[in-house]
Amino acid sequence: MPGNSFGQLFRITTAGESHGPGNVVIVDGVPPGIALSVEDLLPDLRRRRPGQSSIVTQRKEDDEPEILSGVFEGRTTGTSIAILIRNQDQRSKDYSDIKDKYRPGHADYTFDAKYGFRDYRGGGRSSARETNVRVAAGAIAKKVLSEACGVKIVGYVKQVGPIIADIASPENITLEQVETNIARCPDGVAAEKMITLIEKLRGEQDSIGGTAELVATNVPPGWGEPVFDKLKADLGKAMFSLPAVMGVEYGAGFGVATMKGSESNDVFVAGKGHGTKQASSPKPQAISTSSNRHGGMLGGISSGMPIVLRCAIKPTSSLPREQKTVTKTGEPTTIATKGRHDPCLLPRFVPMGEAMMAIVLCDHFLRHRAQNG
Amino acid sequence: MPGNSFGQLFRITTAGESHGPGNVVIVDGVPPGIALSVEDLLPDLRRRRPGQSSIVTQRKEDDEPEILSGVFEGRTTGTSIAILIRNQDQRSKDYSDIKDKYRPGHADYTFDAKYGFRDYRGGGRSSARETNVRVAAGAIAKKVLSEACGVKIVGYVKQVGPIIADIASPENITLEQVETNIARCPDGVAAEKMITLIEKLRGEQDSIGGTAELVATNVPPGWGEPVFDKLKADLGKAMFSLPAVMGVEYGAGFGVATMKGSESNDVFVAGKGHGTKQASSPKPQAISTSSNRHGGMLGGISSGMPIVLRCAIKPTSSLPREQKTVTKTGEPTTIATKGRHDPCLLPRFVPMGEAMMAIVLCDHFLRHRAQNG
Amino acid sequence: MPGNSFGQLFRITTAGESHGPGNVVIVDGVPPGIALSVEDLLPDLRRRRPGQSSIVTQRKEDDEPEILSGVFEGRTTGTSIAILIRNQDQRSKDYSDIKDKYRPGHADYTFDAKYGFRDYRGGGRSSARETNVRVAAGAIAKKVLSEACGVKIVGYVKQVGPIIADIASPENITLEQVETNIARCPDGVAAEKMITLIEKLRGEQDSIGGTAELVATNVPPGWGEPVFDKLKADLGKAMFSLPAVMGVEYGAGFGVATMKGSESNDVFVAGKGHGTKQASSPKPQAISTSSNRHGGMLGGISSGMPIVLRCAIKPTSSLPREQKTVTKTGEPTTIATKGRHDPCLLPRFVPMGEAMMAIVLCDHFLRHRAQNG
Amino acid sequence: MPGNSFGQLFRITTAGESHGPGNVVIVDGVPPGIALSVEDLLPDLRRRRPGQSSIVTQRKEDDEPEILSGVFEGRTTGTSIAILIRNQDQRSKDYSDIKDKYRPGHADYTFDAKYGFRDYRGGGRSSARETNVRVAAGAIAKKVLSEACGVKIVGYVKQVGPIIADIASPENITLEQVETNIARCPDGVAAEKMITLIEKLRGEQDSIGGTAELVATNVPPGWGEPVFDKLKADLGKAMFSLPAVMGVEYGAGFGVATMKGSESNDVFVAGKGHGTKQASSPKPQAISTSSNRHGGMLGGISSGMPIVLRCAIKPTSSLPREQKTVTKTGEPTTIATKGRHDPCLLPRFVPMGEAMMAIVLCDHFLRHRAQNG
Repeated sequence: MPGNSFGQLFRITTAGESHGPGNVVIVDGVPPGIALSVEDLLPDLRRRRPGQSSIVTQRKEDDEPEILSGVFEGRTTGTSIAILIRNQDQRSKDYSDIKDKYRPGHADYTFDAKYGFRDYRGGGRSSARETNVRVAAGAIAKKVLSEACGVKIVGYVKQVGPIIADIASPENITLEQVETNIARCPDGVAAEKMITLIEKLRGEQDSIGGTAELVATNVPPGWGEPVFDKLKADLGKAMFSLPAVMGVEYGAGFGVATMKGSESNDVFVAGKGHGTKQASSPKPQAISTSSNRHGGMLGGISSGMPIVLRCAIKPTSSLPREQKTVTKTGEPTTIATKGRHDPCLLPRFVPMGEAMMAIVLCDHFLRHRAQNG
Repeated sequence: MPGNSFGQLFRITTAGESHGPGNVVIVDGVPPGIALSVEDLLPDLRRRRPGQSSIVTQRKEDDEPEILSGVFEGRTTGTSIAILIRNQDQRSKDYSDIKDKYRPGHADYTFDAKYGFRDYRGGGRSSARETNVRVAAGAIAKKVLSEACGVKIVGYVKQVGPIIADIASPENITLEQVETNIARCPDGVAAEKMITLIEKLRGEQDSIGGTAELVATNVPPGWGEPVFDKLKADLGKAMFSLPAVMGVEYGAGFGVATMKGSESNDVFVAGKGHGTKQASSPKPQAISTSSNRHGGMLGGISSGMPIVLRCAIKPTSSLPREQKTVTKTGEPTTIATKGRHDPCLLPRFVPMGEAMMAIVLCDHFLRHRAQNG
Repeated sequence: MPGNSFGQLFRITTAGESHGPGNVVIVDGVPPGIALSVEDLLPDLRRRRPGQSSIVTQRKEDDEPEILSGVFEGRTTGTSIAILIRNQDQRSKDYSDIKDKYRPGHADYTFDAKYGFRDYRGGGRSSARETNVRVAAGAIAKKVLSEACGVKIVGYVKQVGPIIADIASPENITLEQVETNIARCPDGVAAEKMITLIEKLRGEQDSIGGTAELVATNVPPGWGEPVFDKLKADLGKAMFSLPAVMGVEYGAGFGVATMKGSESNDVFVAGKGHGTKQASSPKPQAISTSSNRHGGMLGGISSGMPIVLRCAIKPTSSLPREQKTVTKTGEPTTIATKGRHDPCLLPRFVPMGEAMMAIVLCDHFLRHRAQNG
Repeated sequence: MPGNSFGQLFRITTAGESHGPGNVVIVDGVPPGIALSVEDLLPDLRRRRPGQSSIVTQRKEDDEPEILSGVFEGRTTGTSIAILIRNQDQRSKDYSDIKDKYRPGHADYTFDAKYGFRDYRGGGRSSARETNVRVAAGAIAKKVLSEACGVKIVGYVKQVGPIIADIASPENITLEQVETNIARCPDGVAAEKMITLIEKLRGEQDSIGGTAELVATNVPPGWGEPVFDKLKADLGKAMFSLPAVMGVEYGAGFGVATMKGSESNDVFVAGKGHGTKQASSPKPQAISTSSNRHGGMLGGISSGMPIVLRCAIKPTSSLPREQKTVTKTGEPTTIATKGRHDPCLLPRFVPMGEAMMAIVLCDHFLRHRAQNG
């Protein structure tokens, strides 16, 4: 399949550019009978929306979704759901500057190299604008997961530059805690520092990187496939498909490099968790681990423990300050991106990451049910 | 598709367990006319083979591949290639210990939770034994890439525990340098320390983690798809599909969290690289970047710069020392894994990681050619 | 993948119902740089449109497509193309009759059985209305095929009831000949009889079946895959995915049942055709067959001869006359479908069949190019 | 995906040629816990085997399958099952004749055109020999369908040349009836005539075509997807993927061309069948149709009525008598295929067709369960 689809059974296919008429997603494989309306899509779209606060891009987009199919009398019908979000802020402006120059850190050059030319208005298809319909699809996935299995997905900003949030128990962070501040960091003290830092960098016409942490709780043990479609593999692909993600890690993550096996292994214990469904023990014995360095997956299959992952997000490449680059014909020049870009991508990344996590988990929920009943 | 296939056009499908008759891979989509014989598969299989040195598992497996189809008169026919590697070391032993207990850090529990029972001999399908046929398929991918585009793929051990290799230019490391020592670390000084550390941990009935770095050079700009099948997304999935990988990062990786945009962006320069194929410049202008913090991909599409990624590998979970765990029915117990496991996975991971990198790149080579001619 | 996508590399994904806001298709994998505008889509949409003549349904739909993405400055960009066709004729009417009854020959019952409920306005997702976006996508496929390889696709009505058109050479029929009459039958004498018959059946509140023939010329030899994705297999699936198709046959078709091998085999001859590309004969020898009972494919791979297939189309199930059926709870009742249905599906089937044929061929063009350069 | 895989969730991937070491299938997505051994595969392999009777090819192949993975202690584990069938009859003979000539009706020319060269020993990958592993996989699919839903699949020969079997009720034909004669025709009188005709044609160094009918009973209503993956579409692809199939039809098939809607529609009745699962009627009302011209599928979704399809099979192309053809360089010549080919493909087609029908139904069983629970 070409690269505009994601997922095997819960499957999304998208189209759209930053400055075209709009973005579309077709969500396929949604179970029938789920209550669904535009209102279900709005909260996460609002969290992703440009202009939501002083520390994100001020581009104006209302991101009003229209459901074109697949819902009848307020419920999903089981057939494909198309959602359209039209673009509003298609300013007629002079693109001659970026038309002939390659913005550092952007996909301008690689699109030209791949296709021979490109839609040079904004980022075209490479713009993060395409993620609005991912977030809409993710809202559907969250609803299916919540109703079918009680799965909850919460993301938050863990680090901005040198400021690292103090999070004792990732699995206990709530959406409400995350939304208490515009940094989307549940550690209020760190959040204040992050906001100050981001505003300082905006003033310096610069940007800053960071990390986000995503947590899924109540995932039953057994989701994921043994070899190529390990849950960690599909989640990893999902995260790396988002713009600006430079690293992904689970549980102890890169910290395992300096660990011994005797330090890294989590001990199995009885008394919590989902347990197995073996014929020999009709009432499944609840089994879990006493720590979660494994990040909720063993052999790529969910263990019943919280799934915990972190993404490293690079600082926005577009800078209002002048940067060196070359033109299409290789002539040295400079470029300065005018206005309205995010000085830090992290606050708006959170709903994008949650959406992709939900889509992967919903897909594996259906895949597991297909094979194992 | 179920989870035993990987890739869209250059596609592998595998089967096999650690203690069954053997492992099989079917490689589909191989271009016709490529010279291929068993001898092409052996070098990488030898690098992955158990028992190759004093710092890996001493399990005895010759890993002799048999090509069952798709090759005629020494050349690939364009039809699917099946390769069978029979297991040798299927010792008839007493599995009653691991049959009823969950080994810490292993997939025993999650397989039981998923399928209701499991092949408890060794790791069954969750054993790293399945990677031998991936390495065989990767050897084919390397050959296609090399003949068609001159792409070269080299991996090496970057870190074991606290010991970090000093690598000035990842893109200049050669296979010969990597193979000068059993640690597969091209920094000879670090390699010595790594070997000493691994042998020490073996003596302590323990294991140790680390990181591996993988580098692909001569990849033309333009490979990868804009949205979900970004090259970094498919490479990320490929790496996370390998056992024990807990983190993946590209270029500056998690280091971007503390960078400013003005520090992170790589500057485009003329004079090297592949250049674009635009109609306006019939002789494509060679364009590259003066640094490679982006790791060879922009917008998920190859930039023509070396593709550089790192994987974090956890220490082997199987330990000869006693560890706490529970039985299937939740009773507390202890377990000690008898013999023959790797005290450090890194040296044998290198050919596995290279193979998966080659498979992803070969797939995107064909995908790019399909759409763009 | 769920069932709303078709094709591997040239891939369409659709959504929409007969009485919802509209239908959408996302076309993925289109080569970049192809000139494309709404005007390219209109001719085939006009041929499929309701109300085009006196012998088709009089439902009013203008079928005006909007291209939402993937085209920039009049050319395809290589990214996914979304096309939206809004529904116009969404009359607010009383559906209580079909809401609780199962229309004979329709999917009302099977949708209820599958999903537990259904969109009972018109046929919902089972309506042939969804084919409008297939036809739009097919117009793109035709353009790619024509520009890249000179492939031409022409369909026409071969039979309506007992009236069979006299077609000496399927490969010589032109679009212009087909469009000379509203029956879309290039045999003018038969066309007149077909029109008379269809009008007679409309008067009787009945409908009539028939067959359509589809022909692709200039297809190079070598398209199609040897085993499961034989060209005849993918074309067969494409045809059977269209509403009301009850049979598909190639070349001599069901006629082979009474043939001997000595009668059925087509003889290879030199002097025409595309020839092979073997190293041993740098200037490929033109080879074809002196007859075309094989229908243009051997071993499922195109032979360079015209691809000829026929579809059997059942008479429209919706009838204005009263028919026996049951209610959802199994009570015997009668039903009469009010107005505006096609007394014969054949004239409007022709562009649908052509579109699906084009999509399959375009997909295999890209697949062949991917593997074989 | 390349063309050597079939199915979405119950998925087979195959490799192998007629004169190579053997054929392999990897069956993915099999539910865990199904009892399975080599003995389950043998009956259908015996029905497909060469040399089984006087009216099929006398090539000697025992077709002994080896299960390489995915089965443990007599039960499927849920992981991929690999089955290997080695070739026996790889006579070392002189292929120089067919090496340089194109056999009429064979894929020799199209393979050369596609790949630039071919495995000229026998048919290579285009030989029907590859179907032996399809039949092995189909035996697994039959077992899953039978245990999970009671689905039964029976095929038989309906027509050989002008001889047409008299079958009153396709859904009542049993495997035992089919296997009472070597023609696999449950009408004993017709079977005798078929055998006589086939033997006569063998004597004349010729071959004969025919049709086979395949019937699936106890398929619950609701299997199949609404648009592209209609059950009839996937079954159609499956049948056309088998060698020599020139036509496929369902229920009334091509007979619908001369029918009126009032003749074609099947009437819904209460009192039999599976019924719907609507919330409004907790005890589903049994609904079926009083006739089965629709062939068991409406809107591409199973109706609960028997699924009935027919395939037209061309006469074997390989003939011992001399036929005209050309060489690779286009020189006119003649060719006679030496020995051991089927004078009629129908008796051995029956188990192949059943296998593919079972694979499609098993795939849609899992797909339906995934989405609808």
